[in-house]
Amino acid sequence: MALIVQKYGGSSVSDAASIERVADRIVATRRAGNDVCVVVSAMGDTTDDLIDLAQQITAAPPQREMDILLTAGERISMSLLAMAIHERGVTARSFTGQQAGVITDDVYGKARIIDVSPSRITETLEQGAVAIVAGFQGVNQAANDVTTLGRGGSDTTAVALAAALGADVCEIYTDVDGVFTADPRIVPAARKLDTIGYDEMLEMAACGAKVLMLRCVEYARRFGVPVHVRSSYSTLTGTLVTKENPMEQPIIAGVAHDRTEAKVTLVDVPDVPGKAARIFEVVAAAGVNIDMIVQNVSVVGTGKTDVSFTLPAADGDAATKALEAAREEIGYDEVRYDDTIGKLSLIGAGMKSHPGVSARLFKALSDAGINIEMISTSEIRISVVTSVDLLDQAVRAVHTAFDLDSDQDQAVVYGGTGR
Amino acid sequence: MALIVQKYGGSSVSDAASIERVADRIVATRRAGNDVCVVVSAMGDTTDDLIDLAQQITAAPPQREMDILLTAGERISMSLLAMAIHERGVTARSFTGQQAGVITDDVYGKARIIDVSPSRITETLEQGAVAIVAGFQGVNQAANDVTTLGRGGSDTTAVALAAALGADVCEIYTDVDGVFTADPRIVPAARKLDTIGYDEMLEMAACGAKVLMLRCVEYARRFGVPVHVRSSYSTLTGTLVTKENPMEQPIIAGVAHDRTEAKVTLVDVPDVPGKAARIFEVVAAAGVNIDMIVQNVSVVGTGKTDVSFTLPAADGDAATKALEAAREEIGYDEVRYDDTIGKLSLIGAGMKSHPGVSARLFKALSDAGINIEMISTSEIRISVVTSVDLLDQAVRAVHTAFDLDSDQDQAVVYGGTGR
Repeated sequence: MALIVQKYGGSSVSDAASIERVADRIVATRRAGNDVCVVVSAMGDTTDDLIDLAQQITAAPPQREMDILLTAGERISMSLLAMAIHERGVTARSFTGQQAGVITDDVYGKARIIDVSPSRITETLEQGAVAIVAGFQGVNQAANDVTTLGRGGSDTTAVALAAALGADVCEIYTDVDGVFTADPRIVPAARKLDTIGYDEMLEMAACGAKVLMLRCVEYARRFGVPVHVRSSYSTLTGTLVTKENPMEQPIIAGVAHDRTEAKVTLVDVPDVPGKAARIFEVVAAAGVNIDMIVQNVSVVGTGKTDVSFTLPAADGDAATKALEAAREEIGYDEVRYDDTIGKLSLIGAGMKSHPGVSARLFKALSDAGINIEMISTSEIRISVVTSVDLLDQAVRAVHTAFDLDSDQDQAVVYGGTGR
Repeated sequence: MALIVQKYGGSSVSDAASIERVADRIVATRRAGNDVCVVVSAMGDTTDDLIDLAQQITAAPPQREMDILLTAGERISMSLLAMAIHERGVTARSFTGQQAGVITDDVYGKARIIDVSPSRITETLEQGAVAIVAGFQGVNQAANDVTTLGRGGSDTTAVALAAALGADVCEIYTDVDGVFTADPRIVPAARKLDTIGYDEMLEMAACGAKVLMLRCVEYARRFGVPVHVRSSYSTLTGTLVTKENPMEQPIIAGVAHDRTEAKVTLVDVPDVPGKAARIFEVVAAAGVNIDMIVQNVSVVGTGKTDVSFTLPAADGDAATKALEAAREEIGYDEVRYDDTIGKLSLIGAGMKSHPGVSARLFKALSDAGINIEMISTSEIRISVVTSVDLLDQAVRAVHTAFDLDSDQDQAVVYGGTGR
């Protein structure tokens, strides 16, 4: 008998039939004697449809109004889900983010949760009823206005509620069976992980694994919430994201990949102190977060060097424009932009204590004839940039080289989790 | 420079283009120097679509959840409308019923407004911004849960806000040019009224005129809110609903008709005291409101009489079942049910002081060869029940007999106002 928070994404509640399927699962969990709080996203394409409507009216909607608009989606899914549970003989009540006590800052569109006061949820659970909470939304303290949490917002809502309620586990239902050693669409032999540590999951999420959003994992780690990532299409155990257990730690957790980045190279930057700092000030002022940075040793006698960095391809325009505007001040010769790169990341808490991981990685890529353009490392991660055309091949080669391949191919599709 | 509350129904905001048209009008009103608070319904068929979704899931949705579901519709229309106004260079902020301070009782699905505390609206108007408020919804005091106001709810929201804000006028935008002397679809020569008194408008609404809902007019009368019913498709002055002005009072305001009623007749009821009371107790216990009642004089020597009454046809089943169950107790012989009746009502505050109105009405119907089945009267109204087949003909005959015909036909269509 536990207190369980369950989160269902938009694809799990895309129509009446799937809402009923989700209701069956919730009712079974409740009838097994558990207290159940459910966080739900908007149905299927609802959010995209609402965005389309807004774009018909204005190219630049005020964010406050955009947030009010988008939160209509969860209002629909949560009340329908409560009805479906009620129809099955279990009392259920739905609550907006505000009613559930999800307090945020006032950054409309990507608000951060600053407090959760779920007294109405606690009261509902104490009465033996199921509480349904709208994901992705909260209310800001200052204005008492509705805010949305941005991408991955519903996962974050679920983890934050689990933390505030002291839940035993936060179950994130998705369209895959759990977290895999690699994307099974690319590596058919990828294995589902039974457990993964918060730090490894953070690196996986940051490096392109879409199954959980970074901020949700950050929240879970900060509050020590065990997160069970599992399929809404089966009753199989998925992957438990939790504290590292050194006794059971394999060297490598998995191989992540990311096709969403681009590379900017500034050619012939004067190799004097402060230039690199100035470059990244200019980029930061344009609101762009950069990822990897490489600065070559300057060519002897020229006093010039090249500086390369990667960034989300979506920010490519903003960054290059800002740099062009600062060309004279920085004194570089040329900006080169390349959005045909791919990033491969090898992640594993075990690599901290195992030498030779980098060497094995580079050898695997070299044996496969794949050129490495950039490299960056953390304590538990090595990332390399390759040509995007070779990325899939690189992922397969590395997956095999680290003995991650399972005996049988995975039939599942490894995709996003909605929001 | 006035404080104006405007209400736009679902058909006025059915898509992006019509939302933009409404925004143009609001912006023009604001730019003319007025403070503007707008009440808006859900877009077009949104509410019906949401009801369909709920019915796919359960035949008996909990009303609390149904209300949360339905209020999603206004959330969408109000935020889109605020965006469209913003796009035109005028600041606008949208507010849910709760944020606008619309407090209701806790009868989900048909809540009544018990208080309006529009401090956020006042503040918004003082800042020179347009306030957009979700119609049809409020929040109950006890549970802090969302409620809906039922049919005509958005009109009532608008009038209630106008009263609380001390607005100079409440403009109800609809798809007709105002209140007419009769339904122009039936009487092409019907005339638009420039003004009509609250009492007359109440009788018109109660007798089938769909342009304003009864409860909205009741609210306006109680708080003395001037209501301007006008078209969202033109800038013509519509009809002002306000206090009677005896100096300008014509004898007759108009002819209303209603096809939604049915007639129940109990045959051979014992003509002893208390029987009629018992009949209507039984009907009331079934939750049915009755309209007109006729009890014939008992046939000499039999001690028996017939009792007829009219009621909404939608309640016909409930009433006849309840009466069948009480047949022995009441001691009647037979229940007859007739849903092929029509009701014509002649309404005019002037008829109080003008004798001969009834005689003229009966003569007009008799000249047209129309039989009268039942009659009821109030100080400012005479209603008659006829066969539904003859109703249109009766309306035209009466309209002509009381000199209401205009010189030219009205091209507009006289329809509902959404909710």
